[in-house]
Order: sequence, then structure tokens, then C-alpha cells
Amino acid sequence: MSKVAIIMGSISDMPVMQEAIDILKAFEIEIEVDIVSAHRTPEKLFDFSTNAHTRGISVVIAGAGGAAHLPGMVASMSPLPVIGVPVKSSNSIDGWDSVLSILQMPGGVPVATVALNGAKNAGILAAQIIGSHDKTVMEKIIKYKTELKESVIIASDSLNKK
Amino acid sequence: MSKVAIIMGSISDMPVMQEAIDILKAFEIEIEVDIVSAHRTPEKLFDFSTNAHTRGISVVIAGAGGAAHLPGMVASMSPLPVIGVPVKSSNSIDGWDSVLSILQMPGGVPVATVALNGAKNAGILAAQIIGSHDKTVMEKIIKYKTELKESVIIASDSLNKK
Amino acid sequence: MSKVAIIMGSISDMPVMQEAIDILKAFEIEIEVDIVSAHRTPEKLFDFSTNAHTRGISVVIAGAGGAAHLPGMVASMSPLPVIGVPVKSSNSIDGWDSVLSILQMPGGVPVATVALNGAKNAGILAAQIIGSHDKTVMEKIIKYKTELKESVIIASDSLNKK
Amino acid sequence: MSKVAIIMGSISDMPVMQEAIDILKAFEIEIEVDIVSAHRTPEKLFDFSTNAHTRGISVVIAGAGGAAHLPGMVASMSPLPVIGVPVKSSNSIDGWDSVLSILQMPGGVPVATVALNGAKNAGILAAQIIGSHDKTVMEKIIKYKTELKESVIIASDSLNKK
Amino acid sequence: MSKVAIIMGSISDMPVMQEAIDILKAFEIEIEVDIVSAHRTPEKLFDFSTNAHTRGISVVIAGAGGAAHLPGMVASMSPLPVIGVPVKSSNSIDGWDSVLSILQMPGGVPVATVALNGAKNAGILAAQIIGSHDKTVMEKIIKYKTELKESVIIASDSLNKK
Amino acid sequence: MSKVAIIMGSISDMPVMQEAIDILKAFEIEIEVDIVSAHRTPEKLFDFSTNAHTRGISVVIAGAGGAAHLPGMVASMSPLPVIGVPVKSSNSIDGWDSVLSILQMPGGVPVATVALNGAKNAGILAAQIIGSHDKTVMEKIIKYKTELKESVIIASDSLNKK
Amino acid sequence: MSKVAIIMGSISDMPVMQEAIDILKAFEIEIEVDIVSAHRTPEKLFDFSTNAHTRGISVVIAGAGGAAHLPGMVASMSPLPVIGVPVKSSNSIDGWDSVLSILQMPGGVPVATVALNGAKNAGILAAQIIGSHDKTVMEKIIKYKTELKESVIIASDSLNKK
Amino acid sequence: MSKVAIIMGSISDMPVMQEAIDILKAFEIEIEVDIVSAHRTPEKLFDFSTNAHTRGISVVIAGAGGAAHLPGMVASMSPLPVIGVPVKSSNSIDGWDSVLSILQMPGGVPVATVALNGAKNAGILAAQIIGSHDKTVMEKIIKYKTELKESVIIASDSLNKK
Repeated sequence: MSKVAIIMGSISDMPVMQEAIDILKAFEIEIEVDIVSAHRTPEKLFDFSTNAHTRGISVVIAGAGGAAHLPGMVASMSPLPVIGVPVKSSNSIDGWDSVLSILQMPGGVPVATVALNGAKNAGILAAQIIGSHDKTVMEKIIKYKTELKESVIIASDSLNKK
Repeated sequence: MSKVAIIMGSISDMPVMQEAIDILKAFEIEIEVDIVSAHRTPEKLFDFSTNAHTRGISVVIAGAGGAAHLPGMVASMSPLPVIGVPVKSSNSIDGWDSVLSILQMPGGVPVATVALNGAKNAGILAAQIIGSHDKTVMEKIIKYKTELKESVIIASDSLNKK
Repeated sequence: MSKVAIIMGSISDMPVMQEAIDILKAFEIEIEVDIVSAHRTPEKLFDFSTNAHTRGISVVIAGAGGAAHLPGMVASMSPLPVIGVPVKSSNSIDGWDSVLSILQMPGGVPVATVALNGAKNAGILAAQIIGSHDKTVMEKIIKYKTELKESVIIASDSLNKK
Repeated sequence: MSKVAIIMGSISDMPVMQEAIDILKAFEIEIEVDIVSAHRTPEKLFDFSTNAHTRGISVVIAGAGGAAHLPGMVASMSPLPVIGVPVKSSNSIDGWDSVLSILQMPGGVPVATVALNGAKNAGILAAQIIGSHDKTVMEKIIKYKTELKESVIIASDSLNKK
Repeated sequence: MSKVAIIMGSISDMPVMQEAIDILKAFEIEIEVDIVSAHRTPEKLFDFSTNAHTRGISVVIAGAGGAAHLPGMVASMSPLPVIGVPVKSSNSIDGWDSVLSILQMPGGVPVATVALNGAKNAGILAAQIIGSHDKTVMEKIIKYKTELKESVIIASDSLNKK
Repeated sequence: MSKVAIIMGSISDMPVMQEAIDILKAFEIEIEVDIVSAHRTPEKLFDFSTNAHTRGISVVIAGAGGAAHLPGMVASMSPLPVIGVPVKSSNSIDGWDSVLSILQMPGGVPVATVALNGAKNAGILAAQIIGSHDKTVMEKIIKYKTELKESVIIASDSLNKK
Repeated sequence: MSKVAIIMGSISDMPVMQEAIDILKAFEIEIEVDIVSAHRTPEKLFDFSTNAHTRGISVVIAGAGGAAHLPGMVASMSPLPVIGVPVKSSNSIDGWDSVLSILQMPGGVPVATVALNGAKNAGILAAQIIGSHDKTVMEKIIKYKTELKESVIIASDSLNKK
Repeated sequence: MSKVAIIMGSISDMPVMQEAIDILKAFEIEIEVDIVSAHRTPEKLFDFSTNAHTRGISVVIAGAGGAAHLPGMVASMSPLPVIGVPVKSSNSIDGWDSVLSILQMPGGVPVATVALNGAKNAGILAAQIIGSHDKTVMEKIIKYKTELKESVIIASDSLNKK
């Protein structure tokens, strides 16, 4: 069965990254969560990245802020799809630093970047990647999209009843 | 077998998007290529997006410039993973418009965004998504990464021989 | 009689969009208000956009935040003038994302964009569009501009009396 | 019959603004074209703006670059809908100056802003404003949108025939 | 004797502009203060700008926010030096809009722009302009600069006494 | 009689700064031109700045690119009005660096900043500063503005004759 | 023995700069701290910069906000390595002004720039510069990096025990 | 004796990085030059970074473009001072991506960042770091600064002879 690894550069990224954990649990997809700092634990980064695909992991979600090197460095060493979550950290220049240092990867080493603080979407994207070859998961995604639609319709109805 | 759809908003995006075609051909992954304009052919967009997953497509790559709505609109209607390629078009404001209108999707509807004009990386990411459950493709990716490394080592050697 | 449709991508846009409602009511112009999400209710978007001009609507005001596709997608399917209101939503990158994804539409599909959170101006612009062929409305606009002027003169007077 | 005034701050804006002229001629809408500089001919600006609506003009299109004050100043004095075209002039800071000085109008004085150098869309928007109460013009717009669609379908076909 | 006019687009700019008033009073330079809105009182703008130099005014300080046209429009009609103060207003895009719409004036019509919310510096600059031909005022400026220096030296001393 | 000093950080700024020289010559205002580099000739910077006002200079125009410290450093040491010209140099980040490092001066030390590469406007502003107390110069400025206006009217006429 | 000078443009920069003081004290490196304002105490700037290397100082850390000229001006007059700390001050445009006016120095006069408000890193960098030729300091840096790593491992462990 | 390592992410960075090589040769400082790609040769990156300080290297200069992770990753593993050179590569978003992904390092892991394409300054900074404890090198730097000054004086003289 497919498993998603959710890693982040610092425990301070957890409030943002929790949304990826929650949505993947809602989709009943197995996850593991860890702190792997590109800048403070480079050996752990190396171990994690070179071995993830041999440990049953299908997708990696990596969140980091500022000059965010974690997603790109995992992508440089792992053959798995890596989803990057730019986190707006305290001394960030409005989030531009994390967005650009995750998004603008050179040819050969992609990172699937989502919106600033978009950990929920990172979780959904991981589910979609698994769903692309797993019918049970795809059906959950289709159901999820239907629920999104219904919540809008309910909001619309309550608006027009007033 | 998995198939990747590569769509773009305009024929003028082809020079950029060709790199996605080339790399996927190099990985021997089946592709289909089409022009689907969110703004000029909305019905085709609807048809494509709602049916892609029923036609054997596993991943969609969508490239567009300016106020680039194609990747996000496909993602809103398809349960498949959608990779967005921001294209730097002629009247773009330095590419910021396409980057932000693809990347900053709301919660619930992710687009896996790659670098500005990063169609090659979109192709590799699509291959990685397929490779996450297809050993043959994963081995090709591992081989590709080895070749990337070797090209750097050759450049390094030639530098130090001088 | 002319009618203005005010739609928004999410109920969370209402505090901003309320200003369009208020000013159009002040001009005694008929309105309808609804939630239409480009990303979560694409079928409703399609229905709304292709039919609006057959239901007596003259102008559409569409507000959305982040990667804001609602105004542009309505414009792609409706022959009516569409006014876009970039909404500064919570995870927005300072509003640049909504501004650029509404403003930078490709040739052939204009959106009349107003300032960030500028829903009041969207309402006035809708009134001006109707006023361009409706003398009663135009007179109200001329009166409104006179009142704007007077409020400045009163402020100026009170300043110089001190 | 409705008439559109196309004005610009300098003769150097003509290559950009010509696209508005061309599309409105294609729609067989009457136009007048003039140079009105907010900064060099302020009296002419005042005359033009306060009288336009009494001379049979329905919509004003105003293009300007850099610190672009022309669209906003016309809007401050005319009750007509004013469409602003940010022009990317030679010493512009990547067009940001003209975009922001046209778009970010204060409450009470809207300018319907189109994309950087988007004069063609300004022309189409003017036609849509007229079309909102003029069936002949609306039918031309619907026909124009159909042609846009067909040009995409032809491009798509030629792509897939290869 | 030289007189400085301090005008602003809205009473809401007063908290920022007060600093210009205070510093000019400290320099004992005669001032007049008024609200002149480019967008809401264009006739007053016209009267003010064309007559200021005939009423004994030597320098104009004009503050405005958002798409800030007041300083540039005064400069277009007055032969006097005009100092522009970009005000960071509530819906401003981080102040970039007011900075660029005041700074980026076309050739022929300069505005002497100071920092965002830099009304104090606008006042000092006005004093320097008068001081360039008025010895009493220049001596006050030289004295002011000496005091600036002393305040730093006192802070430095207190730091090193600790 | 009033004299304007035009200084620049490098001989490579001359093509931009020449426009200030030309317009001041046209106004028949006495000038001196020199290269003073804040970073390479700091002693000369100190000498120039502390003595300029004792040598009959009324206004300083200082142009520089990149991290442009010349205008601000002159302003820190001279009681004269200092006009800063941000020059877009070769490795500039689109001119933002020179604009911001000249414009955003701290309280107490203003620099009258003009547009990117706006040396012509710097010259006109210097003339306006002199003109604020010198009738002959003010009349030249009024005449100059009239000529600006006439050139627009001629362009407008030739446009409408076609 | 090596000594680090920590200077700042204003006492208001102290809360940010304190982190440089603290980390250098933790490394037991001798420091001196002072306020030197490029704009308000230029003579002190001159004295400090031309003499620092003759007073036993090895590295200068200079922090400043807005149009931040202090680091660059010290660098222009001192042969020592100068580390610049961009401080996000109150009227800063999101910190871009201090970042760009410190970073974008012209060829010949480098400033070693650290992140916005990155005074702690400035202190570490100063220690690394000293450590490059002083074994005791280098060992402290190696120990510091080990502690950084351990703090991540502890956070990771506590996460996975839950 | 001190040695400087100059590394870059790709052979395409060589035209920019050559300036660091040239200036260090001019200072007669020993160098080694190599290509080390964070993303394509991560093992080499690890080897280089963990061993550089044991091989007689005192300072590392690392240049990279786009999402530039090389300088920061070396800094995470080496106790040496690391100088980062943001390179403006072909698909860069105006250089902002490389600047921010090098500059905005988290607390604990500094990179001494120089201007965009500022390899010459990186070389001078490396020399200054060595010069901070090596009198011969410091004298060369003092001599270099004198020559910078003289070149400005010559330019100034030739200007004033005309």
C-alpha cells in the first residue's frame, strides 16, 4: 500500500503542515511525519532522500520557509514525486523567498509546488498521485470534490433565502 | 498503461511545452497533445477535464501564460493530478502573472506548479508520478538522475584538466 | 430594466463584496447576488456564464481572491461586460496573486479590473455602464460625484476654521 | 448611436493603442481618437472630460504609461465608464508603475483597467459595454467569441493531424 | 517671505502629513494647509495649481495614497517645485501604488518624491529649497543637522556607559 | 547667481545624466559637472558635500545606480536641496535597487527623488527650485510648459488631419 | 586577539542587532558596540571606517534599515570584511529597501549581506571569518553546528513518540 | 597559506564566476575551481562541504542561479565562511529567485551574499576575509582601494578638461 512522508524543516512549520496530515488521514492514506532540516541535519536529509523509495513511500511532502532548500534537496536525491509547501515564516519577505526557492528548480529536478502555506492542497495532491493508479483513493477524491461543491451550494442557498 | 495529456492554452505556448513532450518521449511514456483554451474554448475545457480520467489518462500537464486559468480550471473538474507550467508570454509582467495565477490555488484544488517555462520538469514530474507505482518507469528516472550527475562530473573534469 | 449580477467565489469574500451591493442599492439598480466558485462549482459557473445575458442581466461583477479565476472564466463564456474585484484573501501574497490573475487576461477576453478590495468602485462602474445609455442612472452618477466633491469641501472648510 | 473616444497621453502610445482602434472598427463602432496629456495639456484634459458625455460619447478608452494619470483624471471628471490601458513605456519599471497608477483608484472613482498593453481588450470591453443595451453589437460580440473558439479548434486540428 | 502649501487628497492623510506641518512650524516657515482631491475636486485642483505661484507660495507639498495623482497633477499645472509624499493608505498594495504613481512622472513634469509616509522629510526639503536662497532658513537647517548628530552621540554615549 | 552641481557615481552614468546637463543649459543656468563616487572616493564625497553650499551652489543633482548611496550621503552632509536620479545600471535588479536606496531615506535627511533614469526631470526640478525665488528662471519654466503643451497640440492636430 | 565591531544606524535597530551581540558573546569573541549613523554622523562614520582595522578590529557588522547606507559606506572606507544586516524598520517597504540598498553594492566594494533581520547569522558569520584562521573559534563553530543538529533530532524524536 | 574554493552549480555559471577567479589571481591568492551541483551531484556536495576545511581551504565562494541551493547547502555542512553569488540564469524571474534563495538563510546557517552576478565582489570579500589576519593580503586590498579611487579621479579630470 502507498504511504506519504510529510517532512518539514522545523517544528515551527507544524501549524501549517498539520493540514496535510489531517487531509491525508481523512483520505485514510498511511503517513509518516518527521522533521528533517536541510541546513541543520544534512546527513538525515541524505539518508531520508536516498532511501524513501525503498521504504514503501510513494510521495514526499516537504514544507519549509525562507531560503527553503528542503523540498529541492529531497528532489535531487529521490526518484519519488516531491511536493513542496512554501511556509511563510516570521522573517520571510512576505513569503516570496520560500515560494521562489521551492518553485524555481533547475531543469532535471522538479518540485511540485503548491500555494504559500498550502499544506492542505499538498495533501490532496499526494492523494491524487496515489489515486492516479488506485481506484479506491480516486473515488475518495471524486467524493471530496462533490462535497466541496455541496458546501458552496449550501452557502449560496442560505444567501438567497435571506 | 499510463498516459500523460499535455495541453496548452495557445499554439504560441508550443516552443515552451515541447520540452515536456520530448522528455516524456525519452521516457517512452505515452502522451497526447492538444490545445485547450480556458478562455476561448470553455466547452472543450469542460469536456476534457471531466473525462480525462475515464480515457486512461493518469496525469495532466497544462501550460499557460498571463492570467493563466487553464491548469486551475482543469484541476477543478478532474480528479487527476494536474501539473501547471507557467509560460512567460509576450505581454506578461515578467512572468509573475502566470506564476501566481497557477500557483496560488485555493484550498481543495491543488495544481502541482513547476518553474516559469519549466515544461521539462513538468514532464519529469509526470514520469515520477507514474514511476511511484510503476517499477519500469522508476528505473528510468533513477537512470536519468545518474546521467545528470555524470554530465556534471564530465564538465568538472574538463574544467580541471585545463 | 438593467440588472447587475454580483457573484463571488466564496462566502468569505462577502465583507469585501458587500460594498458593491450597498452602492448599487443606493443607485436603486436591481441586483442579484450569488456564490459561484470557479474551482468548486464549475457546472454552476458554466450555467451562470452562458445564460446571464439571456436573463436580463447587463453587467456582471465577480470577486475572488488568490489564483482568482472566476472573473476571467465568466468573461470567457459571457458576452456581457465583466467587472473583476481582486479580493485580498488570507493566504494571498499581499494581494498580488488576485490582482494579476484577474487583470492580465489574454487578448479577446477582457475583464474590467478595479483596485484590490475595490468592490465599491465595481458597483459604481456597473452603474456607469448602465448610465451610458440610461439618463436616470447617469444623473444619479453626476449627483454622486457632486456629493463626493462636497464632502471634500466640508472637510477642507472644517480644517481651515481651526 | 454610441461612440467610443480613444485618447492617449502621447503619440508614442499609438502603436499599443492602435489595437483598440482596429477592433472597434471591426465591430463597426464609431470612434474618435485624440492625444490628451494629463501632464502637458491639463486644460484639454478638463475640457475633454467634462464634456465627453454631452458630445454623444458612451465610453472612454484612455491609455498612458509610467505614472499614468490620464485614465483616473478623466474618470474624476466624467460620468462615463472609463477604460484604462496601462502602456509599458521605455523608462517604466517593468510596467508596474502604469498598472498600479491606473488600477488602484480610490473609492468613488473607478477605472476599468485591462492588462498591460491590453488595448485590444479595451476595445472589446467598450463594445461589450455598448452591447449590454444594443442587440446588434452584442450579436457581433457573440460572433467574435465564436471565431476565437474556431481559431483554437483549427490550431488543435492541425496539431493532431501531424 | 516664502510660504509652503501643504495639501493632501483626503482628511485621512492628515496623521501622516502632520509631520510636514510640525517641522515647518519648527523652522518658523509660513504654511497653508488644505485638502485638494485630484479625483473628487478637480476644479479646486485646477484653481490651486494654476494660481499657487501668484499667491506667494514658493513650494507645494502634496500627499496622497493609492493611485496618487495629486502631486503629479499639481506639477503639471504649476511652475513651482512640487514635493510628493506617497501615503500608505488602507487598501494600498504595500505602498507600491502610491510610490510608483508619484515617482514615475514623464519627462517634463518632475515631482520631488520622498519616502513612503515621509512627510517630515518633505517639510525639511521644502525648508532646504527656501534655504537655498534665504540665509536665515539655511542656518536653521545647519543647526537642525547638528542636533540630529548630537542625538546620535547621546544615544551612543548612553550605550557605552552601560 | 545660482549654480547647480551635477555629480554622478561613475562615468558610465553619463549617458543618462547628460539630459540634466542639456536641459539646464537650455534654461541658461550655470552648472558644474563632476564624478564623485560614494564608494570609491569617499574623501571627495566629504569635501564636495560639506563645501558645496559655500561655493555658490544652490542645488545638487546626484545620479547613481544599484545600491545608490551618493545622493543620500551628499544629503547627509550638505544643507542644500539634493535631487537624486536612480540610474538603471547593468546588474541592477530592474532598477528597484537604485530607486529604493535613493528614495527611502530616514527622517531628517530628504532626497528629492525623480523617476528611474529621470535626469531631465532632475534638471527641470533644479530650475524650478531656483525659479521659486528668481523671476527670470520662473518665466523660462512657464514658457517651457507652454511649449510642452504646444507639442501635444501639434501631434493631436496631425493625428486628426489624417 | 580578534575583535568584532557591531555598529548600527539608530538605537531603534538594537532589538534586532542584540542577537549578533548575544551569539558573539556565546562564542567568547571580543566585541565593541556603537551607534554610527551614515546620515546623521558622517564624520564619525569616516573616523570609524578609516581606523577600525588599526584598532584591532577584524570584522565589522553593520545594521541599518530603509535606504541603508551604513554597511556600504563602511565598506567603501575600510579594508576589513563588512557584514551588512538589513533591518526591517517601521516605514520600510516590506524590507525590500534595506535588503537592496545593502546587497546591490557596485564592483570593488563588497558587503557580506545576511537575511532581513538576520543579526544572529551576522554574528555567526563573523565568528566563521575569525575561525577561518583561529582553531579555537572554529572548534566552537563545529560544536555549535552539532548542537543545532541535536536540537532538530530532539524535536523529531518528541514528534515520533507521540 | 590560505586557499579559496570557487564552486558553481553549472558550467553555464562560468562567465559570471570568472570574475571571482580573475580578481583572486590578481591578489595572488591560491584558488581551486570546480563544478558542484546541489541538485545533480548531491554526494559530491556532501564530500566537498564536509571536507573543505580539512583541505586547507579558508573561504568558499559558491555561485548558482534560480532556486539556488548550493551556497546554503555548503554552509549547512562546512564551518567555513561561505560567500554566495546569485547568478541571473536564463529562466530566472529577473534574478529575484537566486537572490532570495541564497540570502534568506535561517538562523544558524549564514551565507555571505553579494549582489546579483557580483562574483568580482565575492572574490574581493574572500580576500578581505583572508586579509583580516594576513598583513600581506590586507596591504593588497588597501592598494586596490587606492587604485579604485585613482581611476575615478582620472575620469573626473578628463571630464573637466573638456
